[in-house]
Amino acid sequence: MGGDPGEAISLLEGLETTRSIHRFLPDPVPDADLARILWAATRAPSGSNSQPFRFVVLRDGPRAREARALLGASFRAAWAAKAGGEGWHRGSGADPRSRKARSARAMQHFVDHFEEIPVVVLACMLRRHPAHAYEGASIYPACQNLLLAARALGYGSTITLWHAGCEAALRRLLDIPEDVFLAATLPLGRPAGRHGPLRRRPVRDLVFDDAWDSPASWISDPPGARLSGDGVAIPDSQRR
Amino acid sequence: MGGDPGEAISLLEGLETTRSIHRFLPDPVPDADLARILWAATRAPSGSNSQPFRFVVLRDGPRAREARALLGASFRAAWAAKAGGEGWHRGSGADPRSRKARSARAMQHFVDHFEEIPVVVLACMLRRHPAHAYEGASIYPACQNLLLAARALGYGSTITLWHAGCEAALRRLLDIPEDVFLAATLPLGRPAGRHGPLRRRPVRDLVFDDAWDSPASWISDPPGARLSGDGVAIPDSQRR
Repeated sequence: MGGDPGEAISLLEGLETTRSIHRFLPDPVPDADLARILWAATRAPSGSNSQPFRFVVLRDGPRAREARALLGASFRAAWAAKAGGEGWHRGSGADPRSRKARSARAMQHFVDHFEEIPVVVLACMLRRHPAHAYEGASIYPACQNLLLAARALGYGSTITLWHAGCEAALRRLLDIPEDVFLAATLPLGRPAGRHGPLRRRPVRDLVFDDAWDSPASWISDPPGARLSGDGVAIPDSQRR
Repeated sequence: MGGDPGEAISLLEGLETTRSIHRFLPDPVPDADLARILWAATRAPSGSNSQPFRFVVLRDGPRAREARALLGASFRAAWAAKAGGEGWHRGSGADPRSRKARSARAMQHFVDHFEEIPVVVLACMLRRHPAHAYEGASIYPACQNLLLAARALGYGSTITLWHAGCEAALRRLLDIPEDVFLAATLPLGRPAGRHGPLRRRPVRDLVFDDAWDSPASWISDPPGARLSGDGVAIPDSQRR
């Protein structure tokens, strides 16, 4: 990550280097830093500036601890199902030195130590309309702002969806109303260890000009860009 | 906006000051700037780093011009329906000096001059699964990165959804496959005129601690923060 949090990262550099973090130090996050991160998150745009986003911060309060335990169990079950279903321990994953196996170990570490992550933020959204395809436009930009603000202050986070397995229990415990969409679970803390560069597909796979699949001759990956292959897609922070 | 685009804005300042822009100069966007903005957009996270986001850039190509005309008509119809349905010209909106009336005029200007905006980006997403509530987590963070990268280089954008009114025609014209989700339309150009600060609800309305609706004593709006009221929600860039 950015090293000294007092050293300001430029906006463009932040956008181009912020990656999902899954390994955290247990160090607590001071209130002032947490407040600044959530302030920045809530500056995100939303449909008609309606600001339906609500963030529930889970730290050491009595309900927070119980919620984090529910989430930890749910995350472990979700990863076990994903690893089995997608064959993360088969094929190249059977070789412990392979990137796939390293990634699987990092994910296992993430879920096994979930409760030790100092802060977990539930990103929620008031649903004023019946669920529709575009509704994420009013909550996920705020989640991305949270990830970027974390990066600016020397922290890391990731957008996860594995609260799905304990959603009903979580709603009861935290009094989350039925018409609130639980859009994401965002663990937050200081990143542990070193994290390499982002890997993405060649940018010409992702950007078209004038029509679908029509090449954009004016864009190319800069020298040194790290490209991801076509194999099993691997979360950034498990690539080392 | 940030003034001289050569003057680097810090990541945190960018997050805290980037607003939706609806008034643009017609100046073309140089290829190098456009490439940098789209590069930054495609660095966003996505589920399992699967990168389902695809950006179709519409400028002056033959299909792009036709697509922009389709979009312009769709945006004008959508704004007319919204303004009528939500009563933007009634109540305080009947007073031409009111914020509501000024906002309505700005939106009318936006849709009336849509085709003059130098670049329009369609943010698309490959749907590998049936549509589901969380899918926006893999496209809207990239849209937010696009807005922020635009800001870093002295441009502006906004996440709009008003392509919905011409989606079928747009798909035919641009060869966009059926299994691709058209998640947003992002106009892009140099902002016209001055744009004031972001306005948001009091941050304690948006952030809870330990449970839903439980106050977060450790966060508060900094001095000088501009708060939005509870009335008609108004897009940022119409607040002047």
